[in-house]
Amino acid sequence: MSKQIRIAIAGYGNLGRGVEAAIEKNPDMTLVGIFSRRDPASLQPLRAGTPVHRLESLAAHGEAIDVLILCGGSKDDLPAQGPQLAALFNTVDSFDTHARIPEYFAAVDAPARANGKTALISIGWDPGLFSLNRLYGEALLPDGATYTFWGKGLSQGHSDAVRRVPGVKAGVQYTLPSPQAIERVRAGERPQLSTRDKHTRECFVVLEEGADAAAVERAIVTMPDYFADYDTTVNFIDEATLMRDHRRMPHGGFVIRSGNTSAEHAQVIEYSLQLESNPEFTASVLVAYARAAYRLNRQGQCGAMTAFDVAPGLLSIKSPAQLREELL
Amino acid sequence: MSKQIRIAIAGYGNLGRGVEAAIEKNPDMTLVGIFSRRDPASLQPLRAGTPVHRLESLAAHGEAIDVLILCGGSKDDLPAQGPQLAALFNTVDSFDTHARIPEYFAAVDAPARANGKTALISIGWDPGLFSLNRLYGEALLPDGATYTFWGKGLSQGHSDAVRRVPGVKAGVQYTLPSPQAIERVRAGERPQLSTRDKHTRECFVVLEEGADAAAVERAIVTMPDYFADYDTTVNFIDEATLMRDHRRMPHGGFVIRSGNTSAEHAQVIEYSLQLESNPEFTASVLVAYARAAYRLNRQGQCGAMTAFDVAPGLLSIKSPAQLREELL
Repeated sequence: MSKQIRIAIAGYGNLGRGVEAAIEKNPDMTLVGIFSRRDPASLQPLRAGTPVHRLESLAAHGEAIDVLILCGGSKDDLPAQGPQLAALFNTVDSFDTHARIPEYFAAVDAPARANGKTALISIGWDPGLFSLNRLYGEALLPDGATYTFWGKGLSQGHSDAVRRVPGVKAGVQYTLPSPQAIERVRAGERPQLSTRDKHTRECFVVLEEGADAAAVERAIVTMPDYFADYDTTVNFIDEATLMRDHRRMPHGGFVIRSGNTSAEHAQVIEYSLQLESNPEFTASVLVAYARAAYRLNRQGQCGAMTAFDVAPGLLSIKSPAQLREELL
Repeated sequence: MSKQIRIAIAGYGNLGRGVEAAIEKNPDMTLVGIFSRRDPASLQPLRAGTPVHRLESLAAHGEAIDVLILCGGSKDDLPAQGPQLAALFNTVDSFDTHARIPEYFAAVDAPARANGKTALISIGWDPGLFSLNRLYGEALLPDGATYTFWGKGLSQGHSDAVRRVPGVKAGVQYTLPSPQAIERVRAGERPQLSTRDKHTRECFVVLEEGADAAAVERAIVTMPDYFADYDTTVNFIDEATLMRDHRRMPHGGFVIRSGNTSAEHAQVIEYSLQLESNPEFTASVLVAYARAAYRLNRQGQCGAMTAFDVAPGLLSIKSPAQLREELL
């Protein structure tokens, strides 16, 4: 067995805790530290012995860490942390603001390259595994169309939007793919689908005392950008029901490529995820890519990269010969 | 637009014709020649202008070919051709005798490496895309189980076995995945499944004049290795029906990974193919990997490789920056 890969976590929210759990499932890795903005004494790692430090002390631990997994958010944390930490560590992050990926890539690439580090950005399932399947689909069936459906899943952004409506005490929002739309795509029909055709939205709302349910519902379903372009259902529930039935963070979705290899023959490729915990799954993907980051860096491949640049074999604990024998 | 990738085809059966069709869908590639054992004058390429040569003349065309796609069979053609041609060309093949892959890999690797060539072996969908999904599944969800189901699809080997039964004039065999087994796996149950649980077999048989249908059926369903371990249905049809309804070569299947990221949360990843033409789809995969072989060779990466060694981005006609912007 080769030497253990020493992993550290920067940011200890749902994603950071998911990474901690995922490392337990990978016997070639050791968690050497958790770095958080919060007081280390206030954190309770899964294993009592795991060292916990302040985020600011990270730079002092460079020699002890093979790969640092960045578990901060794409809005406020990663734009600053990513470039800064890629100068000091091999990193993996889940930067997921699709429109800003080219800019983020450039910002991380320069310091990583200048310091001989490898930075895997935008790892997870979308961006990440879904992106890979969009790429494979296009490359393998160039004459065709790609469809991405999300859900059933809890959407943080839309749940936040619901909670900002006056009269809403608490609430969650689920994105649901349209079964009819998926069936049409699966059947090889290659339909033109509007936003409303592809997904519906379902809200579970706890009202504040005395709030007007009809007004709240109207405010939600007509909200521009978030709900106006969708068929949205609003369900009113009590707080106990919300706590009991809606605390999980399920998600998932489908990437379907439908294409023709000749005038006579259509082909359909489908990839789907059904996730009971979105953050734990994303974390598990980050950890597999941490293995790849470590290996790429040892091969001298530096700079920013995405899932598109990582040969699948680099993700596996198994040797290339073992993979050929067992999985090919 | 960079220079066209010059592709040649060795072997002009169903797979070779599929490669020819696939090249038409990839504007960065040019088909520079078809090499066949048959008399060149007897072949009719899709485009009248495509040069057709005898297979024996291949060595003389080294300078004109960037990647040679080997379209021969795994039993009789590739074990000899693969190693021999990998010394002269960058190659892509669909060697699919799973048990002999390590041996074939070694036989191709040495000549390719010695001559600065890149040889991608065992490309297609199984081995190939299904292998990739087995690998991704294991790496992303290490604590879980992987299930591969094939079909609905026409099986050449089993169709041949049916046709060898005395009294059978013609026939085909379809492999069908069990919908019940797939549902159990999708639901995250992680069942132990026997051979009989996973697939059923369905035969369509044309009897010879005067043959005993009951005897033929018994001979088929009790045939060791091929049918005895499965629930097999035999349908007797007339020759016109066989020609009308059973001339296509559909196939497909499912790779499902079901795993836990923690004691509380299960996750399911599913990949599936629904193919109207097995040879055309396999050919389309070979052609995308030919692009990767060309690029890998230009990067100086020589020797035998499999789909496990190929970074996904190398398959796409798009630049890395374009991929990040459009597909990530």
